[in-house]
Amino acid sequence: METGVKLDRLAGECGEWLRGSGPDADIVVSSRIRLARNLAEFPFIRKCTGLDRAAIEAALVEKLSEIEQWDSTLYIDVNSLGEMDRHFLVERQLISREHADADGARGVAVDPNEQFSLMINEEDHLRIQVMHSGLDLQSAWEQINQIDDAVEARLTYAYHPKLGYLTACPTNVGTGMRVSVMLHLPALVMTSQIEKVFRSLHKISLAVRGLYGEGSQAMGDFYQISNQITLGKSEEELIASVAEVAPMLIDYERKARKHLVEGDRNALHDRVSRAYGVLCTAQRISSEETMQLLSSVRMGVNLGLIDDVDIATVNKLFIHTQPAHLQKLRGTELSTSDRNAERAVYLQSHLGRNRSKKKR
Amino acid sequence: METGVKLDRLAGECGEWLRGSGPDADIVVSSRIRLARNLAEFPFIRKCTGLDRAAIEAALVEKLSEIEQWDSTLYIDVNSLGEMDRHFLVERQLISREHADADGARGVAVDPNEQFSLMINEEDHLRIQVMHSGLDLQSAWEQINQIDDAVEARLTYAYHPKLGYLTACPTNVGTGMRVSVMLHLPALVMTSQIEKVFRSLHKISLAVRGLYGEGSQAMGDFYQISNQITLGKSEEELIASVAEVAPMLIDYERKARKHLVEGDRNALHDRVSRAYGVLCTAQRISSEETMQLLSSVRMGVNLGLIDDVDIATVNKLFIHTQPAHLQKLRGTELSTSDRNAERAVYLQSHLGRNRSKKKR
Repeated sequence: METGVKLDRLAGECGEWLRGSGPDADIVVSSRIRLARNLAEFPFIRKCTGLDRAAIEAALVEKLSEIEQWDSTLYIDVNSLGEMDRHFLVERQLISREHADADGARGVAVDPNEQFSLMINEEDHLRIQVMHSGLDLQSAWEQINQIDDAVEARLTYAYHPKLGYLTACPTNVGTGMRVSVMLHLPALVMTSQIEKVFRSLHKISLAVRGLYGEGSQAMGDFYQISNQITLGKSEEELIASVAEVAPMLIDYERKARKHLVEGDRNALHDRVSRAYGVLCTAQRISSEETMQLLSSVRMGVNLGLIDDVDIATVNKLFIHTQPAHLQKLRGTELSTSDRNAERAVYLQSHLGRNRSKKKR
Repeated sequence: METGVKLDRLAGECGEWLRGSGPDADIVVSSRIRLARNLAEFPFIRKCTGLDRAAIEAALVEKLSEIEQWDSTLYIDVNSLGEMDRHFLVERQLISREHADADGARGVAVDPNEQFSLMINEEDHLRIQVMHSGLDLQSAWEQINQIDDAVEARLTYAYHPKLGYLTACPTNVGTGMRVSVMLHLPALVMTSQIEKVFRSLHKISLAVRGLYGEGSQAMGDFYQISNQITLGKSEEELIASVAEVAPMLIDYERKARKHLVEGDRNALHDRVSRAYGVLCTAQRISSEETMQLLSSVRMGVNLGLIDDVDIATVNKLFIHTQPAHLQKLRGTELSTSDRNAERAVYLQSHLGRNRSKKKR
């Protein structure tokens, strides 16, 4: 593992998440599994002194560095980063908002493809995350299981023979696993069916969150569906609980899209085309409006109503127009107002060019 | 004068009005004078039998045909036209809505440049209209005066030595003249000053109307300012009453535009640019929304904020996207819904092409 890494190594494309490939990628943006783990020899984070936290980080970095196949993995010292860089990592879904905003020794190990990351000293000593494009929980599980085994071979996790993995928060005790899929559900939102779907999910103990996890609003019609229970079920059962419901949600969203297209194709075409037009011509635009319009455009591209832009570009724009990304790409801090202008320039440069290919 | 003329002879550009040239044409779209005249030997229109109306039309067409310099003038038998063709003439400002919707023998003589037109059997036997681009009342007056003299040399007008020209409605008695300027006042609307301006105009007995005369709403931020009184003043005084106030209104509008640009150039640029974007990408769009967006674009072009399109094209689009024009251009009757789709196609074909020249 490489330490002392600069963030610019990541500033290019979007890594794995929103790569736009994988099964059912028009609706399932990504499949994610995370494991919460703690070292047996240290107290939980909230009982730690600053020295404890530093010792945990040092121990984990040392052990992770021993894993040979991770030679190209980058270790980023989050505590040394400025606010913009920390939020840049949040926008890429490599660390949580809480990890970005916390204090003290902490960091994240990131695979160069951004398929996996390991947060050190978040709520737990170690949070392992694997993210795959599209609906692909099984291979995400295989990968995270290998990572977990590689780490566990070098360290002693806090583990109770009856309860399973011990975690800072009781809701994670047991497997320490959260399984989630990120879905793009614009048609269910447009047809006002989304609340009904969510109520059904809550009944079967699945949680619904926005793009950036707990408490974040569902920007751009992106929703994370995940398990709420980790205790008393096996990893396979937890994966199955999400994996079984995903095809139903995909089916609902596809039916809603079909309903919209068949009901009034022209109205839908108008809506997505105007969204594209505003993105191409706005001279200042907020992050929220950008997400909302990109959501329409994303559905329009997936339904063949817009062919001016490919889905990979749209996916990239979702990330690159976020505040920290815009500032990283521009190489300087910007006020909200300047970001809104810069965002418009960025959108124009990535969408405006292909106008002559526009379908009539 | 040529009779039995088909409307297709006019279906091309926009004639004089909205040609976009002439003094202060960024704000003063056109200067118009009309004279109400009646033949002494016939009763006023509302007392006429159908035969009377036919006789009036025949007499006027015969006499107008004698005027040699009018050989290329086209006479259109409005009574024989279908509804779409009649409204096509309204949209071009060659006849009034009332003339279009009336019954019985009636028509309009139109100069091929569409600078002047003579409605026969509107509210009065004869309504002469001259329209010049920009602020140009003086030359409009010279032209209409010559036309009036040429007609009067061949016919006897209803004239009272003390009252002046007699007209069907008492408000037109005297000179029978209405002097008007059509102004594009988007910045006064945006800055909410327009009502205050109108109240001042009413105090000095000037009327404010929308694009298509009495009762029409002010679509696209176009306003007609005209005299209300025709009796007891000379033609020169009436022209002066409008000519004197026009520069003040131009000044107000320019100041409002300057205020908008200086206050927040980026916000204004954003607004006009988005309007352009929606016009380029909408797949269905109403006439009202089109007018409103074109109004923003027109101001944007005049302020140098948009250079994708020239002002002549924008002016043409105001007319060509009206319902009857759209149908004439398409060569068939269309439902409202089909017109909204056709309008979008028309706008795209006239605005979308130049996108690569877009200024950043």
